[in-house]
Amino acid sequence: MAETHTPRTHTTHSFTSAVFPLETMEVPGGTETILRGGRHLFPLLPRALEGVRRVAVLGWGPQGRAQARNLRDSLTGTGIEVVVGLRPGSASAADARAHGFTEENGTLGDWLAVAATADLVLALIADAALATHHRALFAALRPGATLGLSHGFLLGHLTATGGDFPPGHPVVAVCPKGMGDSVRRLYEQGAHINGAGINASFAVHADPDGRATDRSLAWSVALGSPCTFRTTLENEYRSDTVGERGILLGAVHGLVEALYRHFLLGGDDPVTAYERSCANVTGPIARTISRDGLRAVRDGLGPAGREAFDRAYRAAHGPARDLIAEIYDEVADGNELRGVVLAERRLAERPLPPIGGSPMWAVGDRARAGRGAGEPPVDPLTAGVFVATMTAQVDEFAERGHPWSEIVNESVIEAVDSLLPSMHARDVAYMVDNCSRTARLGARRWGPRFQAACEQLVLPALGRGDAPGPDDPAAAFARHPVHEALAAAARLRPSVDIAVS
Amino acid sequence: MAETHTPRTHTTHSFTSAVFPLETMEVPGGTETILRGGRHLFPLLPRALEGVRRVAVLGWGPQGRAQARNLRDSLTGTGIEVVVGLRPGSASAADARAHGFTEENGTLGDWLAVAATADLVLALIADAALATHHRALFAALRPGATLGLSHGFLLGHLTATGGDFPPGHPVVAVCPKGMGDSVRRLYEQGAHINGAGINASFAVHADPDGRATDRSLAWSVALGSPCTFRTTLENEYRSDTVGERGILLGAVHGLVEALYRHFLLGGDDPVTAYERSCANVTGPIARTISRDGLRAVRDGLGPAGREAFDRAYRAAHGPARDLIAEIYDEVADGNELRGVVLAERRLAERPLPPIGGSPMWAVGDRARAGRGAGEPPVDPLTAGVFVATMTAQVDEFAERGHPWSEIVNESVIEAVDSLLPSMHARDVAYMVDNCSRTARLGARRWGPRFQAACEQLVLPALGRGDAPGPDDPAAAFARHPVHEALAAAARLRPSVDIAVS
Repeated sequence: MAETHTPRTHTTHSFTSAVFPLETMEVPGGTETILRGGRHLFPLLPRALEGVRRVAVLGWGPQGRAQARNLRDSLTGTGIEVVVGLRPGSASAADARAHGFTEENGTLGDWLAVAATADLVLALIADAALATHHRALFAALRPGATLGLSHGFLLGHLTATGGDFPPGHPVVAVCPKGMGDSVRRLYEQGAHINGAGINASFAVHADPDGRATDRSLAWSVALGSPCTFRTTLENEYRSDTVGERGILLGAVHGLVEALYRHFLLGGDDPVTAYERSCANVTGPIARTISRDGLRAVRDGLGPAGREAFDRAYRAAHGPARDLIAEIYDEVADGNELRGVVLAERRLAERPLPPIGGSPMWAVGDRARAGRGAGEPPVDPLTAGVFVATMTAQVDEFAERGHPWSEIVNESVIEAVDSLLPSMHARDVAYMVDNCSRTARLGARRWGPRFQAACEQLVLPALGRGDAPGPDDPAAAFARHPVHEALAAAARLRPSVDIAVS
Repeated sequence: MAETHTPRTHTTHSFTSAVFPLETMEVPGGTETILRGGRHLFPLLPRALEGVRRVAVLGWGPQGRAQARNLRDSLTGTGIEVVVGLRPGSASAADARAHGFTEENGTLGDWLAVAATADLVLALIADAALATHHRALFAALRPGATLGLSHGFLLGHLTATGGDFPPGHPVVAVCPKGMGDSVRRLYEQGAHINGAGINASFAVHADPDGRATDRSLAWSVALGSPCTFRTTLENEYRSDTVGERGILLGAVHGLVEALYRHFLLGGDDPVTAYERSCANVTGPIARTISRDGLRAVRDGLGPAGREAFDRAYRAAHGPARDLIAEIYDEVADGNELRGVVLAERRLAERPLPPIGGSPMWAVGDRARAGRGAGEPPVDPLTAGVFVATMTAQVDEFAERGHPWSEIVNESVIEAVDSLLPSMHARDVAYMVDNCSRTARLGARRWGPRFQAACEQLVLPALGRGDAPGPDDPAAAFARHPVHEALAAAARLRPSVDIAVS
């Protein structure tokens, strides 16, 4: 585990803008250029979007629904029109109309027809639909129109199938590091607290007219991103796909399944076991990290709690790192994506049954119903296992050369500011059952691996009370570079808790 | 689940031999040619092996160790020499010498040197070594020498990497449907009970001299296979790789992890929970299937037990079938093999920690220590879940067009006659930790999926007491074609229990 001391990320991720005032962020081993967002930048949007008279948002899933509304609100008065394109017979048309995108006012139409009239075309339809229909979309683009993506899936798909993006078109991505619902909700909160929002990465994959960076930054500012940092489409695809299989969704599900049963078998009643496992991660642990960083979770414990945290961290870090490395290999090699394509074919005949019906989640309902204003204390075992797994993902991303902004957003900030609060309001299984198909399949595939690693390796090691080795990851945690990177990222956004209904 | 009624396997799998007396076996929807083995056929071996003066067995893993000894014993007095080839510095050399393969008597040497002197070269080295070194082996073969394999891994590897077998050489496979240890132990028992042994499939992949079938059959007879049936290298690779991830290893591990905790949480003491879950599958359930077939497990229960069996079968069949279909897709597509290659690279730096150290297996030791002559009764819940998963694998293989001999051997006979008895003597985790790397990685990958499906889908459905649907798999079980196929296979071998030390 020596690699925890020597993360390999040290490239300088810099870029320039002709329109927006950029900042330089100190990160472990170097600097990264970032754009701090906010409503004060909205007057710059027309210049950054010069030549763009129509923005097409294709799809009305969580991202399309949030981005179309944020963009329309941010671009009000600029003369730039935001239109929504849906596939024929889309069940989402009624909701789009209810939010003011209608055929009558010319802001709702067939997705290919809409794409053919726009200068910036944001393809936010589901991965499977994009895999099937991207050639029709490419053919529909008007000359020189910019293709926008909100994650790197299509690049992965094109690479795996020997395809390519259409030549002559700028290809960019702006990727909010949170669910669509959060992108909209924090944007609304941003009306009162300037800069509230979900961080985003951007990538310029093709830039034939030399204006792709400013166009991307404008898109991100208009979404309400408090911080926009640069990545590549490939790094975005990898960190996004690994992250949702890891600590964002798959790992958190697997770990709480294991810990819940562990506490039950130790004699806790179901509600207590739930509060010590699942509700502990989604509640006090997530909130502590969000407000005060990773180290604060340990620092908030008493001496005995810290010792228990260290034992759990020490036992969990290695197995978690092994799993994240395996996921990363599978994603980078294309196996994971090929598996999703194979699954899509099977699921046409055999739909994926939901997992939200197991007794654990009924206990969660009871726990939520009985939850007062106070919060249960952080459980040191659960905290050690969870924080070790989160840090293991950070370590793997650092070793693979991702920018620190991407690392902390995909491994920490997206979890504690977007996903975990939503899981706290519903439950983890609900989130797994209701996220994108690619994420859902990935979480179903990898979550059980984290559960098994916890049950078969981590908890037995704790039971044996293994002594720390020479490369004790728990000792390395105190001086881990992630703390510096996270503090740098935290300085760039207003402290605002997401409002979860 | 209508597919359980209409398996698509109905091809006639026939072949001819110039040497051995073949038989025709009736299977659901057709017939298959098979060779019934036995020591009375040993006098035919020289004719079938005409032109073969030396057989090289490369590798001294479980298969190499067993096959080299069986072949030497069977070919005693024929003038055909069996020699063992090992890679330089092999840690197995001492054990090979202890079993009479020595440099002094010319039956032990460097693997490539030995390969260059033999007419039949059996490549029984580990998959990873074969993946790395097969080109050196191909180059070492003398003109016209036959290359023999004991499973289809190398075909999968060559297909995935764009390689091919060397032209001009017969390429055959004889694949015992059991572990190497069983291949040897049952061969020894075969000295007293003619025909005791492990069934084998054979495949002729290249046959430039027209004698590959008889050469393969001779190899199989000399190993002691009571029944040899025909397949293709591709079908062998798929069913073998899927089977070890499914009911042979991965599924059985995942299911007993889930059921053990289920009984514990229901209030059983650990030893009782172990006897009702793991020891139930590896003991009475396996023995019942081995002696009297799958239906006998249900028939041996009382009325309440049958009802509980049916409920469990009904709940488990669909989720198990979904998982087996997923595994099959991943194997057939090459994803699974690419994953193994990626894992091999990672494991060079981070070895796979064993999973045998969890408290469950310590309970297993206590259960075994306290085990009397009597056997605990079949637990209907465990039996229903296990038999449904086994039948789901049968259904998937049938739908994918495998011969029935292969289906029942890879899904039922190998489990109940070879693997489960060994697991009963040690435990499941020990077997996972000590099988081939490909199987170990696969079981680690897929076992947790079966555990999660059991915990998140099967047991909750049982708890809800869902009513049977129109295509109730539990109702289809009574008239399932697997019973006919298994009965046909059973008629072909003497009833002998494997002796497990």
